[in-house]
Amino acid sequence: MIDPRFMAHALGLARRGLGRVWPNPAVGCVIERHGVILGRARTADGGRPHAETRALAQAGGAARGATAYVTLEPCAHHGATPPCAQALIDAGIARVVIAARDPDPRVDGGGIAMLRAAGIEVIEGVLDSEARSLQQGFLTRLAQGRPFVTLKLATSIDGRIATASGDSQWITGPEARAHVHAQRACHDAVMVGAGTARNDDPQLTVRGMGEVPQPVRIVLSRRLDLPVDSAMTRGTAPVWMVHGSKAPEDRRAAFSARGVSLIACPAGPGGHVDLTAALSELARRGLTRLYCEGGGTLAAALLSGNLVDRLDCYTAGLALGAEGTPALGAMGLSALSDAPRLRLSEVRTLGPDILHRWTAG
Amino acid sequence: MIDPRFMAHALGLARRGLGRVWPNPAVGCVIERHGVILGRARTADGGRPHAETRALAQAGGAARGATAYVTLEPCAHHGATPPCAQALIDAGIARVVIAARDPDPRVDGGGIAMLRAAGIEVIEGVLDSEARSLQQGFLTRLAQGRPFVTLKLATSIDGRIATASGDSQWITGPEARAHVHAQRACHDAVMVGAGTARNDDPQLTVRGMGEVPQPVRIVLSRRLDLPVDSAMTRGTAPVWMVHGSKAPEDRRAAFSARGVSLIACPAGPGGHVDLTAALSELARRGLTRLYCEGGGTLAAALLSGNLVDRLDCYTAGLALGAEGTPALGAMGLSALSDAPRLRLSEVRTLGPDILHRWTAG
Repeated sequence: MIDPRFMAHALGLARRGLGRVWPNPAVGCVIERHGVILGRARTADGGRPHAETRALAQAGGAARGATAYVTLEPCAHHGATPPCAQALIDAGIARVVIAARDPDPRVDGGGIAMLRAAGIEVIEGVLDSEARSLQQGFLTRLAQGRPFVTLKLATSIDGRIATASGDSQWITGPEARAHVHAQRACHDAVMVGAGTARNDDPQLTVRGMGEVPQPVRIVLSRRLDLPVDSAMTRGTAPVWMVHGSKAPEDRRAAFSARGVSLIACPAGPGGHVDLTAALSELARRGLTRLYCEGGGTLAAALLSGNLVDRLDCYTAGLALGAEGTPALGAMGLSALSDAPRLRLSEVRTLGPDILHRWTAG
Repeated sequence: MIDPRFMAHALGLARRGLGRVWPNPAVGCVIERHGVILGRARTADGGRPHAETRALAQAGGAARGATAYVTLEPCAHHGATPPCAQALIDAGIARVVIAARDPDPRVDGGGIAMLRAAGIEVIEGVLDSEARSLQQGFLTRLAQGRPFVTLKLATSIDGRIATASGDSQWITGPEARAHVHAQRACHDAVMVGAGTARNDDPQLTVRGMGEVPQPVRIVLSRRLDLPVDSAMTRGTAPVWMVHGSKAPEDRRAAFSARGVSLIACPAGPGGHVDLTAALSELARRGLTRLYCEGGGTLAAALLSGNLVDRLDCYTAGLALGAEGTPALGAMGLSALSDAPRLRLSEVRTLGPDILHRWTAG
C-alpha cells in the first residue's frame, strides 16, 4: 500500500529547497516502513547532498525493506557523488515511489531502470503534477535553456508603480511587501533593469525572514552606467551584471573591483541587451528560478518576448493617474489579438491589497 | 419572536428594485403571521406603489394582527399616496420590524412615531447594515445631494483599456461583460464622457437580461461636439446630455430634436463640465445610483474629486504596454500620500478575468 501523504510530505520538504539548491532540482525524500517515517530530507542548500542520501543516512540500517518516496526520479549518473539510485539499492530499499521522471538526459528513466534491475518495485506518477509544478525552474532550464521567469508587478489600481515625481514608497502594504521577500527567497536570483537600479537603489535582498541564503542579485545594463557604489555593491550577497559587449572597459573594471560578476551579452533589436541570450547565459550558469522586479522597460520586453512564465501582480487600492510611471513600458502592439495573454492561476488578498497570479500558455 | 430571515427575504425583494424605482428608495416588505408569509413586495418600477401598500394588498384582511418586515422605515408624509405608516395602521398590523430608519427629513422617525402612537410594536435595526448598504444610492442622494457613484474600469493587467490604435474589443471575457450588463441594470443611469461616446459609439443599454427597464444614458460633453446620430440617439432608452453653458445653440437644438434631454452646467477648473455641479443636478432630477463607464478623463476627474463611492475593476489576463490607452487620465498627483485611497470590499473571478471592488472612505 502506498500512501500519497508521504509523497505530499516529501513535496513539502522539497519546496523548502526552492531558491537554495540551484543548479540542482529541489527534491524531497521520505523513507517509510509500516507507516513510520525513518528518514526525511530535501536536497541540501547548494544542491548537495541529495535528498535521498540525507534521508538514507537518517534511516541507517532500518532502511532495509522500507519504501522511499522521492519527488523526482533518483539520479543514475556519477557526478560529484555516486548516483542516488545506487544508494537506494545499497541501503536495501524494497520499493521506490516517484512523483515525476527526471527529463535530464543523464537520467530520463535511467534511475528507474537501475532500481528495477536491482529488483526494487518502482511506482511512478504519484502527485506528479504537483511535483512538476514544483520543479518548473529545473524543467524550464532543461527544456528551454533558460530559467523559469516570474515577473512581479506591484501597482496602483491603474497599473502605476510611482507618481510622476518618482514617489513609489509605499504603494502596497506591509503584507504584500513581506510576501515579495518570501518570493525572493524561493527564487535563485532577483533581477532588475538598469533604470530601477539607478532610480531606486534597491538592495534586492531577502529581509524579515531570519538567516536565509540570499538570492543572486542581477542587473541588466547595456553600458553599465550605474553607480559603482550602491546598496547592492555594498551588500554581501552576490551581484551579477549583464551588460552589452560595448560597455566601457573602465566601467567593467570598476565593477569587477567591487566583486561584481560581469556577463557580456550581445545587443538585441532596440540596442538593449538581448534578453533571450541573457537568460540563456544565466541558465548556463545554473539559475533555474529568476524573479524579475521590473522596471517597466524590462518587464515589457520580457512579456513581449514571451519570456514570462508567471506574472505576480500586487494591486493596491489607490489611483495614481496617467502621469504616473507605468508598470509596463512600450510593447509596440496595435491589435488586441497580438497582446500576450495569460491565464489566472490564483487570486487572494494580502492585507489591504490583492495578489493575482497569472501563468503563460 | 421576530425572525431575521423574513427581513433577509424583504432585503432580497428590495434589491430587485435597484435601478428601477428612482427617485424613491428600493424597499422590500414581507407580511407574516405564525410563520406564514401573507404578502411580500418591493417598491414597484418607477417608485410607486410602495412595498408596504403592495404587500398589504396581497395580505388583505389577513394582515390584521400580523407582523410587517420592512427594509426602510415606512413613510409618514402624504405624497402622491397616503403614508405607508397609516396604511399599516389601517390594516391592523400588530408589529412592524424595520431594518433602517429613513433619514429623509419628511420621515426621519416620523413613521415609527406614527406606528407607536397607534399602539403598534416597532422593532428597529434588524439587518440594518445590509439595509443601509442596499440603500446607498438613496442615502447618498439625501446626505450629499448627489447620486451614489460606481466607477467601472475594465482593463488589461497593466491598467489599459485599448491599444494605441484604439482596439478595445474585447479585453474582458463574456462573463465579465455579462456582469457589467447586470450592473447597468441595477443603476438608475449609465454615464460616459464625450471621448468614449465619440470613439466607441456605445449603446449603454442592458442587454442579454430579457425585458428590463433601461437605465438613463448620460453623456458629459462640454460643447456637445458629438454626432447627433449615434447608437444612443437611435435607441429608445432616455438620453441625457450634460453640457457646458457655452455649448453652441445649434448643437443643443439638434440633440433636442432627437429627444435628448439637455442639462446645462457651469464649467469647472479645466474648462470641463463641473462634476460636482453635474452630479448635484442629476440628483435633483432624481438619480440615486450612477454607473460611470469612463473614459479615462472622466474617471480620473471623479476620483480626483472624491466623487467615486465604489470602484469596480475588471482585470483581464493580457498586457498592452505603455502605448495603450490608460484607464485613468491625468490626476496631477506628485506625492503618493495625495493619491485617493480605496478599501478592498470584494475580489472574485469571472470566467478568465477577475473583479476587484473597492470602496471609498
